[in-house]
Amino acid sequence: MKLATIQTENGIQVASVIDQDNKLTFFDLSAFDENLPRSLKGILAVEGGLERAKAAAEQAQQADRQITGTLLAPIPSPGKVLCIGLNYRDHAEETGMPFPDEPVCFSKFSSSVTGSGQPIRIPSVAREVDYEAELVAVIGKTCRNVTQANASDYVAGYMNGHDVSARDWQIGRPGGQWLLGKTADTFAPTGPYLVTADEIKNANSLSIKLTLNGEVLQNSNTDKFIFTIEEVIAFVSQILTLEPGDIIFTGTPPGVGMARKPPVYLQPGDQACIEIQGLGMLHNTVEAWD
Amino acid sequence: MKLATIQTENGIQVASVIDQDNKLTFFDLSAFDENLPRSLKGILAVEGGLERAKAAAEQAQQADRQITGTLLAPIPSPGKVLCIGLNYRDHAEETGMPFPDEPVCFSKFSSSVTGSGQPIRIPSVAREVDYEAELVAVIGKTCRNVTQANASDYVAGYMNGHDVSARDWQIGRPGGQWLLGKTADTFAPTGPYLVTADEIKNANSLSIKLTLNGEVLQNSNTDKFIFTIEEVIAFVSQILTLEPGDIIFTGTPPGVGMARKPPVYLQPGDQACIEIQGLGMLHNTVEAWD
Repeated sequence: MKLATIQTENGIQVASVIDQDNKLTFFDLSAFDENLPRSLKGILAVEGGLERAKAAAEQAQQADRQITGTLLAPIPSPGKVLCIGLNYRDHAEETGMPFPDEPVCFSKFSSSVTGSGQPIRIPSVAREVDYEAELVAVIGKTCRNVTQANASDYVAGYMNGHDVSARDWQIGRPGGQWLLGKTADTFAPTGPYLVTADEIKNANSLSIKLTLNGEVLQNSNTDKFIFTIEEVIAFVSQILTLEPGDIIFTGTPPGVGMARKPPVYLQPGDQACIEIQGLGMLHNTVEAWD
Repeated sequence: MKLATIQTENGIQVASVIDQDNKLTFFDLSAFDENLPRSLKGILAVEGGLERAKAAAEQAQQADRQITGTLLAPIPSPGKVLCIGLNYRDHAEETGMPFPDEPVCFSKFSSSVTGSGQPIRIPSVAREVDYEAELVAVIGKTCRNVTQANASDYVAGYMNGHDVSARDWQIGRPGGQWLLGKTADTFAPTGPYLVTADEIKNANSLSIKLTLNGEVLQNSNTDKFIFTIEEVIAFVSQILTLEPGDIIFTGTPPGVGMARKPPVYLQPGDQACIEIQGLGMLHNTVEAWD
């Protein structure tokens, strides 16, 4: 099942989606289960919520009960946006960094999250804004201290993600923390929709591609992960409780702008598209933001 | 005005507080303004919310309309927990680090927030868990790209904060990011209440003290800030939008456990108290967490 969050004239609601060659049709779940929570985080948080959404989605699609709205991020305000750095073998080689011996964790604020079709806005103080295609895992159930073997039980699904990074704010600043370079408003596009885990045979083996203005600049596969999604979840859950709707950016493959000669940075008017196998297309236009 | 968030038998609600020698009495705001939002974040987010809370508080205290409940963090689930590192001149000297030339920013997840009287729980994988007394500023209004001169307009008030830090997860890990060492569940106690900005003459000149099991281990003044609260807000608002209920930990003075010889780390049973001038006492007991 594909689930999107849309802004309709009746407010924000969750719709099921049919995607035909990146043309999305939305179906009204609330018409068939009026007590279903109106946020995807809410659906994940209630017992059996995804199953109820699936039943409503089947009815809505059979009845062709379409609705229209403006696409938002599937989870517009996650409790956590956890990100993993240097997690592709081929990207670590590109940067010349040694393979980390444990997941490198950083975060973005939820205010950086935006949806497909929304602009990536470059603050006037940021100059070297880079693109990074990333698979995003969405937590479906509360968990702490889980094993790798059980970790996938806590994943509700997957999305395309774009870890936009102002390199001049990420790197070489006092204290060495990446936060400000990673967390500008709109620097975490996700979507266009969440694909439930049952539709993804193996999330650690999906093609992942980013095009900038039609040119393929990243093209790899999540089978190059240094740490699988299950290893990441088991690792971080030693320290913190993961909760429904938390999202995990799992790192980017090679081809980032910073590593190119000369470097390629995002400019106003640029069109960035990310396509991970089975997850549709995340598309954003770059704008200047004064 | 002092505002606390308490769990009552009727749910979570905001109460005004009178503090007599750390004995807190709570007063029922909802009895005098039943449409007042039931969360402090909600009160801050509505136009005129703090003024309405103040009017209700005056009536509730005059009528001696007391309520009881379990104290939670004043803002149990902030949209952002932004933290500043190395922000006291005397602490920077203690660590031997050069004064940073801009605020060093990192974050905690909101799941690390807890209240006064709640336990600080040490995950079994963390060994070197340190204490850090910090003044916390609470954002009252949405702001972006503000000047230092205007920044204080966006601060609703102040709280004691405890930036608990597992040094063995913060420092010396691949990638150098502090996040996991800073963000374990319960590693961000705040409270016991929020004191509105009108009661604090100058937040950049307040005594700040931490005692561990009755022994004074940190004792300084926010007049040792390298960057004032207004400088921090102006700096970060170049990159991100601050929103009502966001909280900013402003760094810690000298005396942290890591810098002592031998080092002092938190142990189960320890009692940590933080007292910043005018902000009451934040008290937490340390527990092991398996």
